Amino acid sequence: MAVYTEVPDGDLEAFVQRYPIGAVVACKGIAEGVENSNFLLHAESGSYILTLYEKRVKREDLPFFLGLMEHLARRGIACPTPIRNRDGEALGELCGRPAAIISFLDGMWPRRPTARHCQLLGGALAAMHLAGADFPMRRPNDLAVSGWRRLYEACKARAHEVMPGLAEELGQDLAEFETRWPADLATGTIHADLFPDNVFFLGDRLSGIIDFYFACTDFFAYDLAVCINAWCFEADGAFNTTKARLMLAAYAKVRPVPPAEYAALPLLARGSALRFLLTRLYDWLNHPPGAFVKPKDPIEYVKKLRFHRGVKSAGAYGLDA
Amino acid sequence: MAVYTEVPDGDLEAFVQRYPIGAVVACKGIAEGVENSNFLLHAESGSYILTLYEKRVKREDLPFFLGLMEHLARRGIACPTPIRNRDGEALGELCGRPAAIISFLDGMWPRRPTARHCQLLGGALAAMHLAGADFPMRRPNDLAVSGWRRLYEACKARAHEVMPGLAEELGQDLAEFETRWPADLATGTIHADLFPDNVFFLGDRLSGIIDFYFACTDFFAYDLAVCINAWCFEADGAFNTTKARLMLAAYAKVRPVPPAEYAALPLLARGSALRFLLTRLYDWLNHPPGAFVKPKDPIEYVKKLRFHRGVKSAGAYGLDA
Repeated sequence: MAVYTEVPDGDLEAFVQRYPIGAVVACKGIAEGVENSNFLLHAESGSYILTLYEKRVKREDLPFFLGLMEHLARRGIACPTPIRNRDGEALGELCGRPAAIISFLDGMWPRRPTARHCQLLGGALAAMHLAGADFPMRRPNDLAVSGWRRLYEACKARAHEVMPGLAEELGQDLAEFETRWPADLATGTIHADLFPDNVFFLGDRLSGIIDFYFACTDFFAYDLAVCINAWCFEADGAFNTTKARLMLAAYAKVRPVPPAEYAALPLLARGSALRFLLTRLYDWLNHPPGAFVKPKDPIEYVKKLRFHRGVKSAGAYGLDA
Repeated sequence: MAVYTEVPDGDLEAFVQRYPIGAVVACKGIAEGVENSNFLLHAESGSYILTLYEKRVKREDLPFFLGLMEHLARRGIACPTPIRNRDGEALGELCGRPAAIISFLDGMWPRRPTARHCQLLGGALAAMHLAGADFPMRRPNDLAVSGWRRLYEACKARAHEVMPGLAEELGQDLAEFETRWPADLATGTIHADLFPDNVFFLGDRLSGIIDFYFACTDFFAYDLAVCINAWCFEADGAFNTTKARLMLAAYAKVRPVPPAEYAALPLLARGSALRFLLTRLYDWLNHPPGAFVKPKDPIEYVKKLRFHRGVKSAGAYGLDA
């Protein structure tokens, strides 16, 4: 839950006046999101999200994130669209922070994702990859293999506090990724953080994909790997092959998947597990005692990483060989 | 900021189906309020607040709170109205907690209250007192003098951690209240917690009074005393006589104030300062280290209490003698 910045009503009214959305009618801080301060803004013309970008998001990355949302929304992807102010700018400033008003998306994120959710997600992910194909901006994935090494070194000395032997175990995976990570898979704009709380559904329809603040230029198949980890494990740690199969099949119907991507999937899924494990481990070891946000359990991702270590081919994800 | 309970989307949809408001379109946890979990609910018919009552609110008090809101809203007071479900019930259950859907009020609470806000508040407070006159339920104020003694005893031994000599100082005030607290002032249903974050404004209009979860049966003038403390001091601790004068005058225009109430105001204001000081002191000394909610500074209310100790008559609040 996160509202790090208190916005005085007068400042808010002055800010909103610069946008063609009518006057502010109400504004409530939202207890969701970890990186930024988010507000649900009711204006005369409808509902919007007001986001104040806090320090974990780099200001120089914001044109990429906002530009991508605008690009995808124009191509019919159900994602937030930044509202441009009367000067034509999508990015403004409020309370000394970069700030944007984006369109509000109906729907709720699934607390217990079903196989049907996974299937709908697969199709939407592929459509998003295709729609992003002609997005002209690029942003390196700073949480790719080289970024993992940096995080790993920062956590290594204390990783045993979370699990004995963890540093040694992760060190071996990381060394393997540094030599074996693929270099020649199809690349484009990916979401890179497509967890269930970033995907909204309304009835039997995927109504929105949100939170593009980790989006970057990387392998399409890496996005699939992130989703396999985030959507296809049950709460007890069991891998649900049906969910993965439906997700991958729905994806491939929209964007045909080259064999090399399937072949790389076990390695990418293990790498993605390490990526979330390392950021959680870092947050776990470094969160201040009185922090608002309870850090997420790193152990969950140790289990996922181990699962993928035992996977020999993408057949384990429910694909026909 | 407060969302203590995570509501699964399926449970939410089933709950909302019992209410005549159409299907759920979106639902976001709100980072406001300390006692309960609050969600902004978009349904097909409009916006609502969904509240899950957490353990600090007694279940047996809920019919009083919800009944009062319904009573006041029917009499034209701008306050939330509980929505009754298809069984005619305003109180339901969700995720094992008592829960209610109440109407959404437009407006924003003033981060920096102006004299005009205070004036509007005075009139609205008096109108609320009059509208509550025929509300048939009663609820004793459990944070009246006897409740202060209980809190004081719980804090006494450690009060010096906040300020040396504080226990002795507050003990003298409390002893005085126990002998001199009035018994014969006009009594009715009061809000008892009317801080700026519980009052919404839209342009030059007071658009709503919320959060009736401390409402009780007590002196009308005690509500005025709470508002004097909550609205008429500046951030630097200075008392703003203009704000108090406008508030009291606007109040008296709607509900004429008997001389005995004015005469009691300095004592009531000092008592009200002690009440908020004691709850803040208790929370300050007893909040768990990793708590979501940062406790409020008790010292602010030490200063207010001392101010009222020096007040000889209500003239100090800007009233003509």
